[in-house]
Amino acid sequence: MNNIAWLNALETPFLLIDEFRFQRNIDRLYQRTEALGSRVRPHLKTLRSIEAGRYLLKDANSPATVSTLAEAEAFAKAGYTNLLYAVGIAPHKLPRIANLIRNGVNIHILLDSAEQAQAVVDFARANSVTFSVFIEIDCDGHRGGIPPESDALLALAKQIDGNGATLTGLLAHAGESYACRTDEAIRAAARAECEAINTAGRRVRALGIACPELSVGATPTAHFAEDLTGVTEVRAGVFTTFDLVMKNVGVCTLDDIALSVVSTVIGHNREKGWVFIDAGWMALSRDRGTASQAKDYGYGLVCDLYGSPYNDLCVTITNQEHGIITLPVDSGLAVDHFPVGTRLRILPNHACATAAMHQHYQVLKSHRNAQETWQRITGW
Amino acid sequence: MNNIAWLNALETPFLLIDEFRFQRNIDRLYQRTEALGSRVRPHLKTLRSIEAGRYLLKDANSPATVSTLAEAEAFAKAGYTNLLYAVGIAPHKLPRIANLIRNGVNIHILLDSAEQAQAVVDFARANSVTFSVFIEIDCDGHRGGIPPESDALLALAKQIDGNGATLTGLLAHAGESYACRTDEAIRAAARAECEAINTAGRRVRALGIACPELSVGATPTAHFAEDLTGVTEVRAGVFTTFDLVMKNVGVCTLDDIALSVVSTVIGHNREKGWVFIDAGWMALSRDRGTASQAKDYGYGLVCDLYGSPYNDLCVTITNQEHGIITLPVDSGLAVDHFPVGTRLRILPNHACATAAMHQHYQVLKSHRNAQETWQRITGW
Repeated sequence: MNNIAWLNALETPFLLIDEFRFQRNIDRLYQRTEALGSRVRPHLKTLRSIEAGRYLLKDANSPATVSTLAEAEAFAKAGYTNLLYAVGIAPHKLPRIANLIRNGVNIHILLDSAEQAQAVVDFARANSVTFSVFIEIDCDGHRGGIPPESDALLALAKQIDGNGATLTGLLAHAGESYACRTDEAIRAAARAECEAINTAGRRVRALGIACPELSVGATPTAHFAEDLTGVTEVRAGVFTTFDLVMKNVGVCTLDDIALSVVSTVIGHNREKGWVFIDAGWMALSRDRGTASQAKDYGYGLVCDLYGSPYNDLCVTITNQEHGIITLPVDSGLAVDHFPVGTRLRILPNHACATAAMHQHYQVLKSHRNAQETWQRITGW
Repeated sequence: MNNIAWLNALETPFLLIDEFRFQRNIDRLYQRTEALGSRVRPHLKTLRSIEAGRYLLKDANSPATVSTLAEAEAFAKAGYTNLLYAVGIAPHKLPRIANLIRNGVNIHILLDSAEQAQAVVDFARANSVTFSVFIEIDCDGHRGGIPPESDALLALAKQIDGNGATLTGLLAHAGESYACRTDEAIRAAARAECEAINTAGRRVRALGIACPELSVGATPTAHFAEDLTGVTEVRAGVFTTFDLVMKNVGVCTLDDIALSVVSTVIGHNREKGWVFIDAGWMALSRDRGTASQAKDYGYGLVCDLYGSPYNDLCVTITNQEHGIITLPVDSGLAVDHFPVGTRLRILPNHACATAAMHQHYQVLKSHRNAQETWQRITGW
């Protein structure tokens, strides 16, 4: 008999990771990517946790992506040495990067403008350090980066490489793929992402610059790409836990979602068919990512404590420390189905945003449902 | 010459509190409430910080409101003894409440149902402890509570008082006042809140129960109430810092907003007129509270580093660690006005949500613009 009494004993609200699903999600993407001849450079931003990272990074030199220098420094301290800081570099952050390099960390920085490149070159010369740089390529107009066909790309590559920096790679992110409505649209986004990075790579390499890494990725395209020719690495972040947004995009099923918030019923409004829980936006986050999708889950889908979802039962309103579950009129459910003290699990719209509201995570281990606690790296 | 060089030196993004505005906001509400013959029981949930609380709580017995037991325990440890935990009590939280009582803390719990009351009475008897209870009164259908005219109120008061618990007070929260569009509408909400609590108070006291405290409050009604007869205390939380939602409601001006996020420009998309900053939703929060108001500020209003707002310049899109400022076509601003490395302050939609994304706050002190750091109490 397995023991999950601890799910009923811990103070609520708390964030729960289901290790079995977490591991299954990792295996799925790693096997898929490796079968296509590439490798995963996981983005660690969702959980920002060393304990979680150990499931993704086999050895000290395994490639990883981070979104803050706080993560880079914490993973470096834990012994990991191949870290891509995938946010455009601000010049005032170069001293922290240089410190990591001096400590033997192979940290890569990202840029897409001549002014950033000049700051890097100047700092490198003044401080006798050599930076490893990725240039961001724009594949879909989502955010930053420069077009793969642009003259600016070649100028930037020449400005960087050999001038206190090595151009290690090019990076594209198909951020628009989160808005795709069909599998075929995601496949097309994946093709466009790969084509952009290969076009950019050919042009830079024609200058005589090695530029060994061609990096692509977003969770949807990573799961739908059919051909990764030329692509040396695939980045994805939220795939380890998935969430309701990714379920709506079609990348996972509800059963794949490995992250939930455990909460307790604290009251009712019988007239309105409301059940109050102690998970408000402080525990669930303010993210309403499913609001613009075909299926809107409010602030999250309600499951019982064992993780089975109630059909269409959502947290519809949140205050800071209150969540309100509205019972659908035709659901056959009454507030008495959820007495005060009942524990429920809430599946999140956006796992990255929900995880960000917690300083630690409780992990339901596959082996005998044991408990483990993982710490989150906080701050910047 | 005052020195604010530290605003340019600290790592970004960081949360900044302007002490001068913070103190001015506190003085305004305290003077107003005391002139009306009542007193403020500040809600500490916005900043959840002992250092911030010292500006609000004159002595150890000053009344305060908290939203989590983590705050209650931290403020108790700091010596504060009059704490109202203003979230409906879940029975499994009673042992932590009892521990506080045994340590000499006058902590008050909130409930609105017979099943909660029964759990309190049972626990009190079994553990030889006496709880101090507030009953929640519904004044506007916003969330929980029972109607002031209901039989349920009298039944609940009798169920509690003298049975392992003391009925210390009644509590109403005019949560719907956040949606008011005119000053007169807020004044009406304040009248309704006071009327509800006085009605409930008269009926409970007619039973021979002392029930000394009649507590009302929400930041809008607290600032617009004209008559607090019978009301012994007024609760408000976000008033210490205010935010863009409160500016839109009409409770404060832009110049009163005491909380901002300091961020650095990290890139541009010239074609789209986009300026990228290193404050994404991790630093600003996902709160879009102004989206449903007359003036939508996106994810925040952009100011220069000295706090002067740019007219209509907002963070329009956020990713986890990227914010995108879209330059309005008719603004006369070009991306070159904001070179990489420029520091900007962003005023938040909702101060409670933005503060929740940070573990500590930097404080710009009134005296010589000195720097101080306040810690946030985290978790539950």
